[in-house]
Amino acid sequence: MDPRIREHAQIIADHSVDLQPGDNVVVDAHPVAEDLVVALHEVIGDVGANPLTTSQRTGTRNLRAYLRAAAGDDPENAEFETPAHELALIEETDVYIAIRASDNVTQTSDIPPSVDAAHRQAHSPVLEERLSTRWCLTQFPAPANAQLAEMSTEAYENFVWDAVNKDWADQRALQANMVEILDPADEVRIVSGEGTDVTMSVAGNPTQNDYGEHNLPGGEVFTAPVPDSVEGTVLFDMPLYHQGREITEVSLEFDGGEVVAHSAAKNEELLTEVLETDDGARRLGELGIGMNRDIDRFTYNMLFDEKMGDTVHMAIGRAYDDTVGEGNEQNESAVHVDMIVDMSEDSRIEVDGEVVQEDGRFVFE
Amino acid sequence: MDPRIREHAQIIADHSVDLQPGDNVVVDAHPVAEDLVVALHEVIGDVGANPLTTSQRTGTRNLRAYLRAAAGDDPENAEFETPAHELALIEETDVYIAIRASDNVTQTSDIPPSVDAAHRQAHSPVLEERLSTRWCLTQFPAPANAQLAEMSTEAYENFVWDAVNKDWADQRALQANMVEILDPADEVRIVSGEGTDVTMSVAGNPTQNDYGEHNLPGGEVFTAPVPDSVEGTVLFDMPLYHQGREITEVSLEFDGGEVVAHSAAKNEELLTEVLETDDGARRLGELGIGMNRDIDRFTYNMLFDEKMGDTVHMAIGRAYDDTVGEGNEQNESAVHVDMIVDMSEDSRIEVDGEVVQEDGRFVFE
Repeated sequence: MDPRIREHAQIIADHSVDLQPGDNVVVDAHPVAEDLVVALHEVIGDVGANPLTTSQRTGTRNLRAYLRAAAGDDPENAEFETPAHELALIEETDVYIAIRASDNVTQTSDIPPSVDAAHRQAHSPVLEERLSTRWCLTQFPAPANAQLAEMSTEAYENFVWDAVNKDWADQRALQANMVEILDPADEVRIVSGEGTDVTMSVAGNPTQNDYGEHNLPGGEVFTAPVPDSVEGTVLFDMPLYHQGREITEVSLEFDGGEVVAHSAAKNEELLTEVLETDDGARRLGELGIGMNRDIDRFTYNMLFDEKMGDTVHMAIGRAYDDTVGEGNEQNESAVHVDMIVDMSEDSRIEVDGEVVQEDGRFVFE
Repeated sequence: MDPRIREHAQIIADHSVDLQPGDNVVVDAHPVAEDLVVALHEVIGDVGANPLTTSQRTGTRNLRAYLRAAAGDDPENAEFETPAHELALIEETDVYIAIRASDNVTQTSDIPPSVDAAHRQAHSPVLEERLSTRWCLTQFPAPANAQLAEMSTEAYENFVWDAVNKDWADQRALQANMVEILDPADEVRIVSGEGTDVTMSVAGNPTQNDYGEHNLPGGEVFTAPVPDSVEGTVLFDMPLYHQGREITEVSLEFDGGEVVAHSAAKNEELLTEVLETDDGARRLGELGIGMNRDIDRFTYNMLFDEKMGDTVHMAIGRAYDDTVGEGNEQNESAVHVDMIVDMSEDSRIEVDGEVVQEDGRFVFE
């Protein structure tokens, strides 16, 4: 086994989820991630915790087969139950480790969005319980994921393990500089090229430092915009992958916090569908600043892309609880879709009128 | 997908576990059985039940890695907990489907037996709960399983699906003839060649008809000997595979029900270890008669071998609850190890002095 896989497993256990003797652990993975699952079982055995492996991730053939069969001839009205056994499992789980990997990243491309949405809705109590565990979402560099990134498998392995197997104490310290600026701030302005000039209030909303706990790799600082405060236009010049399909050159125009105009070069109708999910889907729920410079290229994978050095991202939809200050409005939505702006050239971030990043370079560097 | 896989899944759902809308289902499988797992998910979706896939089977790399790490430097004193999350899952499970398949059937060959035993002991509450579900153990014909059977993968696929995808109502009716003879009987005598001449009482113990419910394939009738009644010698001329190792030409001599002498041509020390597990391990817990004639060859896989036409098998160790009559003694043990006698030539089964099978041919045929 590649020694970097064991290192990856050890970082998950020691750094991300703080694995303890007696912990009840669920590892959820596609079979192509077997090596990392095995390495995790070694660590789980070393520590004296209790493992259970499941294979429920979106992108597995079994979940696709189930969803299509359950939807039958009437996908618009598909109905699902909250599975009592899965809920009971997760209620007794201390640590939940989800490994992203697939043998075909477009496996869900023929699941009608209405079916996926109904299934997620029924599973939301399970998701809520997962979020109350010490959880971690990470990536195994399977060939299909390398293909999505338009990289050879070996180059992609190097990319993933460079981004994951690093000194997280150092990364945390670097990011703390940005948290110090953003946390007490009122107004943020993002300017990039011709397409992006947007301002928003973050007043009273805490800024979080993501250094590889819930997401591995980590490498961003993030907060929530005040929902009604967003004004201006954003051109997300990096594509996004949603439900197995690519949406490119998304442009959103905000007025009083709401998206009042939108366009995309490819799959615009899918973007429209997302925006029409609910009221919250037409408002921002997150502003994030990517600071993991080992992520030096775009790979069509939000777990990495949003942490890429010299980028910012904004999500439409739900705001994370820990980014909304007491008494502030929290954007509520069934969706949370991240989109990215390249900040490496002809770009700047202003906080309360001061430039804190220009063409990718921070003032504290 | 091979249409026989969908047929296999449909038989599991309709015949073996009587799948119902709303059932909470666990499918446990090695990743190499993916096609059958997918086909099962189609049926589960069709019916409107709730699937969860786990990968905990003996023979997976993850379980091996965990067991070895947990045992550490002191395998003789390995300790395990009953995992509360796995127990909670199975307590809320209605249907449990275990799929046997591996990419290396000797995966457990370097797990010390003491570690395996300690782990099974800690898991026994989970196993007990599984047995209270509508459960089924079946086989997927993976290449490594074909290799164990010394067959090409294609020939093994034909073998498995011939044995599994059959008319179970017909098979049930055939076997009912033998149940009718054995159920009210007192004494059974098995004679085969020079090595086997054994008598035992089955008085008061019910005979069960296995027609593909808990085991798929099914194809045996079985009961429990009265523990202290077994007298004589048995040469098990078919090899058995225990903990990843082959034991051949097992010979057992019984006196007052107890094994008083034993030998084997290969791995005799493993046989000795099994016999020394506890008192029950030196007494019989099962007598079975194989009647599935689509199983026409020995494949080193007890799920098939014990149902092979023209064989009988006996298990040392624990007797099944439903084969022990009220007031009769039940053999108790931590083990249940089946061993097989070929009855196709120079052999007979006598029940209360009457020959009911001779050289593989039943009186009712």
